[in-house]
Amino acid sequence: MTEILGVAEAVLYVADLQRAKTFYTTVLGLPVTAEFEDACFLQTGPNSTLILFELEKLQQRQSVIPAHGAKGAGHIALAIPTDQMNAWRARLQAHGVSIEHEQDWGAGTHSIYFRDPDNNSLELIDAAHYPRMWQQIQKKGT
Amino acid sequence: MTEILGVAEAVLYVADLQRAKTFYTTVLGLPVTAEFEDACFLQTGPNSTLILFELEKLQQRQSVIPAHGAKGAGHIALAIPTDQMNAWRARLQAHGVSIEHEQDWGAGTHSIYFRDPDNNSLELIDAAHYPRMWQQIQKKGT
Repeated sequence: MTEILGVAEAVLYVADLQRAKTFYTTVLGLPVTAEFEDACFLQTGPNSTLILFELEKLQQRQSVIPAHGAKGAGHIALAIPTDQMNAWRARLQAHGVSIEHEQDWGAGTHSIYFRDPDNNSLELIDAAHYPRMWQQIQKKGT
Repeated sequence: MTEILGVAEAVLYVADLQRAKTFYTTVLGLPVTAEFEDACFLQTGPNSTLILFELEKLQQRQSVIPAHGAKGAGHIALAIPTDQMNAWRARLQAHGVSIEHEQDWGAGTHSIYFRDPDNNSLELIDAAHYPRMWQQIQKKGT
């Protein structure tokens, strides 16, 4: 028996770890669970972690852990409670973060898109119909 | 009230979507929930999705969805049940996938690292002490 339970760690790469840490802890309110010279671990809900890696330091690191690192805008979607979409809009606005796009997925699910200071594309998606909504969208041929 | 419930979507970029899809559906056994010309959505547990994007097609896409795309080896860690570490080792071996590294985190948590066909670094981590183990590791000053 082999199962996958979920995403334990998702990754975004940044140029300035302290700037990114400030953004994710203040704008998104994510708690820091661990910090290293080249990485900041942010708890995203009870079972998962978003790791911010400072790309240049990561690539210079001597480590037994297998190397990785990518350049360009990454993407992550974070699930939020369905009834908090307005509260999140207000929170982003209060921090001066522009909403780049909003998407109604047509299956009871909605997303808000914005950018972190490194141009990574962040998405808040309400969790009610997720991930089942993707099967519904696919069936409709969108 | 603003909460983050978890990682809804994590992303890896690939050069050949069909090759990557074959790897993730056969070696990892992840179900496909949706497919598009430049993307394959794989269900990773009940609440999260790993999206594989074919980088070149993604960058040519005309879409209202905010653009992203990064070049280089990405990383994701997937949670597995603690008692399935041996079964996962056997499964990888049966598919001819080399284990690049194993890491004992010293807090009751263990990881296996290997590569996908695009050199993305994949990690299977047992879920029992995760993500709390990072706080324990940090406290020990590792």
